[in-house]
Amino acid sequence: MQFEHTTLGQRVLFGTGLAAEHVAAETARLGATNIMCIASEFEREFAQIALAQVQVALWHTDVVQHVPIANAVGARQAATDAHIDLIVCVGGGSTTGLAKAVALTTGIPIIAVPTTYAGSEATNVWGLTEEATKTTGADDKVLPATVIYDAALTLGLPVGLSVASGLNALAHCVDSLWAPRADPINAALAAEGVRALAQGLPLIHSDPTDITGRETALYGAYLSAVAFASAGSGLHHKICHVLGGTFNMPHAETHATVLPYVLAFNAPSAPEAASRLSAAIRAGLGASAPALDGLDAAAEAVALLNELRTRLDAPRALADYGFTTADIPEAVSRILKAAPASNPTAVTESNIAELLGAALAGTTPAVLSPALA
Amino acid sequence: MQFEHTTLGQRVLFGTGLAAEHVAAETARLGATNIMCIASEFEREFAQIALAQVQVALWHTDVVQHVPIANAVGARQAATDAHIDLIVCVGGGSTTGLAKAVALTTGIPIIAVPTTYAGSEATNVWGLTEEATKTTGADDKVLPATVIYDAALTLGLPVGLSVASGLNALAHCVDSLWAPRADPINAALAAEGVRALAQGLPLIHSDPTDITGRETALYGAYLSAVAFASAGSGLHHKICHVLGGTFNMPHAETHATVLPYVLAFNAPSAPEAASRLSAAIRAGLGASAPALDGLDAAAEAVALLNELRTRLDAPRALADYGFTTADIPEAVSRILKAAPASNPTAVTESNIAELLGAALAGTTPAVLSPALA
Repeated sequence: MQFEHTTLGQRVLFGTGLAAEHVAAETARLGATNIMCIASEFEREFAQIALAQVQVALWHTDVVQHVPIANAVGARQAATDAHIDLIVCVGGGSTTGLAKAVALTTGIPIIAVPTTYAGSEATNVWGLTEEATKTTGADDKVLPATVIYDAALTLGLPVGLSVASGLNALAHCVDSLWAPRADPINAALAAEGVRALAQGLPLIHSDPTDITGRETALYGAYLSAVAFASAGSGLHHKICHVLGGTFNMPHAETHATVLPYVLAFNAPSAPEAASRLSAAIRAGLGASAPALDGLDAAAEAVALLNELRTRLDAPRALADYGFTTADIPEAVSRILKAAPASNPTAVTESNIAELLGAALAGTTPAVLSPALA
Repeated sequence: MQFEHTTLGQRVLFGTGLAAEHVAAETARLGATNIMCIASEFEREFAQIALAQVQVALWHTDVVQHVPIANAVGARQAATDAHIDLIVCVGGGSTTGLAKAVALTTGIPIIAVPTTYAGSEATNVWGLTEEATKTTGADDKVLPATVIYDAALTLGLPVGLSVASGLNALAHCVDSLWAPRADPINAALAAEGVRALAQGLPLIHSDPTDITGRETALYGAYLSAVAFASAGSGLHHKICHVLGGTFNMPHAETHATVLPYVLAFNAPSAPEAASRLSAAIRAGLGASAPALDGLDAAAEAVALLNELRTRLDAPRALADYGFTTADIPEAVSRILKAAPASNPTAVTESNIAELLGAALAGTTPAVLSPALA
């Protein structure tokens, strides 16, 4: 057993219907007086709920996916001009991402109030997009001091987006099992995250207003991000990073679509990760989990994830989000440069092209490995 | 689901035989030039191994259990006089405790190199003893910046002390399931800690040189402390704190002895914690776990912990460590003042006296509850 594990210091307040109270308490604790709220127009309703008990000096709504550099520069200038001493961001990953872009250069602390399962709020990773290339980095300055989870603020997320965002969180968990800094602590947190997501997401799919489902998924999404922050980006995230940054594909849907293919690609070379994942999905599905007798660890994990995405009517084909066969060569070339050396299955031009081809078409993931047939 | 969870930022380097390399790397990373090594005479051999690749400005060996205030004052003065900018403590809980006492008033950062399963290295809790009363507090200044785990440095811990120290770690896990700030994250970490300890300690008991056993127990001890740091002290720790501070009883042995009684006291009122604990002990024991068909969650947890302590020849009676019937009234009075209001089973003068009486004599823990008979 050998590992390096960095735990990021952060405070989490979790409670349905308590966002406003918690934001006010944390604002007081941090001694802030000049709040900038970052939330897109779409998220403004929830931002007003979350910030109901504090004074907001500046409302900033200019949020764009993948944080284009121009938007970051604009938000930084606005924060500086208004002498902001606390950012409260209310929204999904793009909103949190913009808050982090401001914190990166200004050092202004962040309270994050997530309304999706993106998980950015629990990592020190920032991302900026310039000229069709997304650059990411890690800096403790961008880690929100406090995260306030209120499942009532996720009720506006439609079922389809909830599923995509939840599977994005599940991808954080799965990728952290074989990412460059994978370790047993991350694996334990990731397994608990998978269990919670596999329990919560089907409840949301059956009834989008199910608060237990929303809470359980939100809790799982938090753990997914903690595990991911420590483990780093594995192959799955490197692939999605290329698809998002270069081909401007939608973040959560891309993750949800690609995950089963990366699992099928890696599971035969990572039987321990596959067993852990199977056990966690089973625990989450509970009595309704399929028996799947006679499958080995890899095949069982692939089958269980496939079962979960079927139950959730999850996104299945990159073609549905604008990716085309003509895009594959450039994507492969970029992915090969980014793929971690520690990936369980060695990557080649042909097997990554095959992976992307299957994900583009939505073919059953098991085609990627003879061991899964 | 409602909770507040504080994660403490810390770096962990885990690797057998790598302590010296890791201490040197972290010293360089922290930019320190004037190191004070705190280690008792007994731990000096391991301290010399761990500090072999750095220069030590000051060796400090005046370590006493429970950190008497006079020892803290002496160590603080020595650190200030020598312009120390980094403390490296190598040893068990008392050694880490003295390092924390110095950090508390001086702010000097700590690298902790634990040689037992005490877990103090992963918490922001300090303790000082003055006039037979131990005072504790929490302050992020005393949290070691980095913990370096090297299972080879635990090989000097005899089997008896390894078992007692390991069960002390197990007590952190169990108590965190019902401590005042118990939450699902702590519970997940605690369960993984229990699993690792229940796997590692029997291996050490069979063969004290078993490195896998030592590594697994050390890893479990770390998680136990992380869970405990966030969850806070439950009834078990309040009892042991009184026994240690007021009656000067040995720390690890007291925890190891008292734990099964606190579990028997609480389990019937905390079935979910009991189920979780049973599953984790079972996962750790693996195929050798007893079947125990027909028991409810509480009875199963009590029986499995009892099975574990039997396999480990664990300490069984407070009488063996100098506690007497005459001490019970004062202990009860102090425990009643300290017991958390959130404890699953309500505490009374008579049931705490009964708990202490059973732990004093080493009676089977199940006597504490009719539900366990």
